[in-house]
Amino acid sequence: MASRRGSREDKRRRIVDAAVHVFAEKGFFGARVSEIAEAAGVADGTIYLYFKSKDDILISLFEEKMAEIIKQLQEILATLDDPEAKMRRYIVEHLKLVAGQPHLMQVLTVELRQSARFIKEYSPKAFAKYLAVIGNILEEGQKKGIFRRDLDPSVFRRALFGAIDEISLEWVLRGPGGTLPDPVVVGETIGDFILRGLRAEP
Amino acid sequence: MASRRGSREDKRRRIVDAAVHVFAEKGFFGARVSEIAEAAGVADGTIYLYFKSKDDILISLFEEKMAEIIKQLQEILATLDDPEAKMRRYIVEHLKLVAGQPHLMQVLTVELRQSARFIKEYSPKAFAKYLAVIGNILEEGQKKGIFRRDLDPSVFRRALFGAIDEISLEWVLRGPGGTLPDPVVVGETIGDFILRGLRAEP
Repeated sequence: MASRRGSREDKRRRIVDAAVHVFAEKGFFGARVSEIAEAAGVADGTIYLYFKSKDDILISLFEEKMAEIIKQLQEILATLDDPEAKMRRYIVEHLKLVAGQPHLMQVLTVELRQSARFIKEYSPKAFAKYLAVIGNILEEGQKKGIFRRDLDPSVFRRALFGAIDEISLEWVLRGPGGTLPDPVVVGETIGDFILRGLRAEP
Repeated sequence: MASRRGSREDKRRRIVDAAVHVFAEKGFFGARVSEIAEAAGVADGTIYLYFKSKDDILISLFEEKMAEIIKQLQEILATLDDPEAKMRRYIVEHLKLVAGQPHLMQVLTVELRQSARFIKEYSPKAFAKYLAVIGNILEEGQKKGIFRRDLDPSVFRRALFGAIDEISLEWVLRGPGGTLPDPVVVGETIGDFILRGLRAEP
């Protein structure tokens, strides 16, 4: 029984990982469920034992991959005390992810935008959690008196996410053939800029 | 002859304006050329006298509307001398556009993202010009010694665009029914934040 469940989990994960590559290569609208099945090495019908539709694969992929990213990020941030260090680290880690997993990031930043309507109707939970990671760093810094208190965390977290996401988008669009700038260098520069805006007046 | 050309221009403009509303309502992928024709009050075949395809309508719409926006923006910025004032004003004007023309901004920010593949292949000229407006303000401020010289304009302009665009996206997705925050208030807050990061050390 345990091994059957293991094999189910394994198959599901293979389908999700295959979908990342097919969506990245063909685009969400251009991708066919049969291509995902082929890439995962399962029969077409098998996909529908796990997912209702192509949209459902995209939603699941998004929620699961984002949950992993958030977990990793929170573990890293938990090792740091200083809100400034956390903010810098968050920015660098986001950019490292983009540079290190271009296919996944293409799906999360480009293909997901293609289904803006779906974002509208579905309002992804994992995205809200991701924004909360940024918002929490800001609020912690505000409580400690390190960051300015007059910044609205709900506006700030979106603006910061947008800034990083736009840079990510440019990297992803340049494609795997392009040479990406060093994510740590770019991240430190942006972090430095952001912190100047964030610091409370002495 | 002049009046015939006038009528051609007028019809073309009516099609573009109709496309803004149809794309905003149905989404780029969901919209049909026949619906655009109906909204513009022209026969289906007439569309193809002006545009090769639905993609072509989107490209033309984007290039023309962006050219108008850039022209207006440049006229406003030309009345200002101080790079700080220009930067603030640019941010506020962008957000005012979003609040004032929600359908157009939905097409420019949401629907255009749906054709990310098209952005990839087409690399919109008007977008490059728009980014150049931001880059030019930064470079002017750097030359005058007001802004830090160690910021790379090509990274900064994308990061700033991303921050503003993400806030715009949230507004657009909230839909015409939602109450939007005052664009001037939000713009001033973001401008203030950005300028803290930009200012050269005294």
